[in-house]
Amino acid sequence: MPELRKDPLIGRWVIIATERAKRPIDFLAAHDDSVAPSACPFCEGKESETPKEIFALRTQGTAADQPGWRVRVVPSIKPLLRIEGQLNRRAKGMYDVMDGIGAHEVIVETPQHVHNAADLPLTQVQAALQTATIRMTDLERDPRFRYVLWFKNYGSVAGAGRVPHSRSQLIATPVTPLRVKEELLGARRYYEDKERCLVCDLVSQELDARTRVVLETPHTVALCPFASRFPFEVWIVPKRHRCDFAKIAPDELMDLAAAFKGLLSRLKGVLDDPPYNCLLHTAPFRHQRRGHWQTIEEDYHWHVELIPRLTRVAGFEWGSGFYINPTPPEESARYLREALVPGEQEEQAAAPAGRSDV
Amino acid sequence: MPELRKDPLIGRWVIIATERAKRPIDFLAAHDDSVAPSACPFCEGKESETPKEIFALRTQGTAADQPGWRVRVVPSIKPLLRIEGQLNRRAKGMYDVMDGIGAHEVIVETPQHVHNAADLPLTQVQAALQTATIRMTDLERDPRFRYVLWFKNYGSVAGAGRVPHSRSQLIATPVTPLRVKEELLGARRYYEDKERCLVCDLVSQELDARTRVVLETPHTVALCPFASRFPFEVWIVPKRHRCDFAKIAPDELMDLAAAFKGLLSRLKGVLDDPPYNCLLHTAPFRHQRRGHWQTIEEDYHWHVELIPRLTRVAGFEWGSGFYINPTPPEESARYLREALVPGEQEEQAAAPAGRSDV
Repeated sequence: MPELRKDPLIGRWVIIATERAKRPIDFLAAHDDSVAPSACPFCEGKESETPKEIFALRTQGTAADQPGWRVRVVPSIKPLLRIEGQLNRRAKGMYDVMDGIGAHEVIVETPQHVHNAADLPLTQVQAALQTATIRMTDLERDPRFRYVLWFKNYGSVAGAGRVPHSRSQLIATPVTPLRVKEELLGARRYYEDKERCLVCDLVSQELDARTRVVLETPHTVALCPFASRFPFEVWIVPKRHRCDFAKIAPDELMDLAAAFKGLLSRLKGVLDDPPYNCLLHTAPFRHQRRGHWQTIEEDYHWHVELIPRLTRVAGFEWGSGFYINPTPPEESARYLREALVPGEQEEQAAAPAGRSDV
Repeated sequence: MPELRKDPLIGRWVIIATERAKRPIDFLAAHDDSVAPSACPFCEGKESETPKEIFALRTQGTAADQPGWRVRVVPSIKPLLRIEGQLNRRAKGMYDVMDGIGAHEVIVETPQHVHNAADLPLTQVQAALQTATIRMTDLERDPRFRYVLWFKNYGSVAGAGRVPHSRSQLIATPVTPLRVKEELLGARRYYEDKERCLVCDLVSQELDARTRVVLETPHTVALCPFASRFPFEVWIVPKRHRCDFAKIAPDELMDLAAAFKGLLSRLKGVLDDPPYNCLLHTAPFRHQRRGHWQTIEEDYHWHVELIPRLTRVAGFEWGSGFYINPTPPEESARYLREALVPGEQEEQAAAPAGRSDV
């Protein structure tokens, strides 16, 4: 059973993934060769090579774990957290520990062997995001969980593993992650002071200035944050204030898919298909919320963070929590804004929600 | 001039290093080839190839920027922060920004072309650490600075750059880094509750349990933390409570050098010369301290964190602040404790401060 251990000094949780336990020898060999397309367990027709599906968007009349799906969700074959059991919170001397309980699901975003979500049709990107909302809503019903993080790793440098088939992941955790807590606290402090949402103010200022805006759709804006940690870091922020991604309206979802695909295509073009991580920050589950979390609906604003993996994090960053960004976000935004993305115009015309690029 | 920009949501500072400004093309080529030893600017005899020295431990009678030094400190040739100027704190709309003022110094740890500090004689490791205390004490006199971080990158994966000559770095910053603030707050909370130092309690518990102890010297203990973020992460903690590394006593410094060299040798042996980052967490400068920082001397405890770079940080870690560690720290400690380090016995016998390994 994996363990969740809490750092006593700063309260950060670590997953000690005992079931992946690695000896020194395991770190010495490089394991980055990708598997051949014929060996990909995520392609249509290979359903028996994954754990049994949790959910799928399927053609009517097709059976679970058979071909006929558009998007398919399966448990991770190497789950970081285990779904069965109770948390068993306990002390080890002065330390806090609990069992590594959680959910770890893989959203296979296409039945075809496509590597980068940038190359999926818009409707497929939309179906994958819709699937995420369905799974997140379902996981919220489990009273053991406080949060679910949606994320996506592309390219081996970004931790995508050896199978290059477009997919995203969901991890439900029994504690609210530190990064999310920090954002919640920052948003709440601002709201208490101004009685306005910080991210709403930020969107308004960025849309006025335009220097860091990459693209704008009817419902979203994609921008390089003022204090970007990484070169070409981009956030997608919904214009409408909402704390909870899973409650997104259908037209907003299609619009988000267009912004997401547009950004991924621009990154691919400008940076020659870079590795990237992408993640969604949404409100924690609120079934057990008390006291100071009551204002989440008013002060928190969900968003997507997209991080191309171009630079290395070294001693100064680990030690300080500072980040060093060699590319001013205004430069990153300009390169991405001015990029020509082949085929974008045609597909935009076909998409239900039109886009107006800046 | 580089800029320091503050993330409005969580208060994290980012250095926008305008003078390293990178275009997309700069990220596409790999720049990992190391320079030939003959082209190394840090070797004895090449003093004219670095900026003028700030400090050196030298043989009497030798001149600055000439051979005859044991340890030499020079400004970074690509400084992340600039030493000249005022902070110029200001607002940009809702954002906070200041000029990138600070110090960025390189401590060249040996006149010979040695790559890994593990391979330096013990007296040389001691001289390099002593030099750090001298420079930190000097930088503390500058009222613009709040903190100085000592760190070390070894290997290109760990961000060491193209010149493989053993060195460490000092960066003095005009704000206390977020990571250090988090530790200070955690230490203070514990002290307020117990009237004891958290790290003193932790050392005592670890020395009782012994399962995570790698080695022990008269004045220090090296251990894999209970909630280690990374496989084979090791901290060196002084047994005696002290918040400020720069005030270390001479016998403690020699003892620390022995523990440090011992650990580096063990990592090198067990993990086949892995890349690593190493960093020192000490108390912030206290000349401008007010209010809640007054207890730092009682509640904060300096320590060294040593992180071999064996795993990749991916979307889940970036998004959550959770870390995933595939090697339980008890296993890491056991491998490092049981490692045979060639030559260690002889050198220990020669060292002024003896060691008693666990």
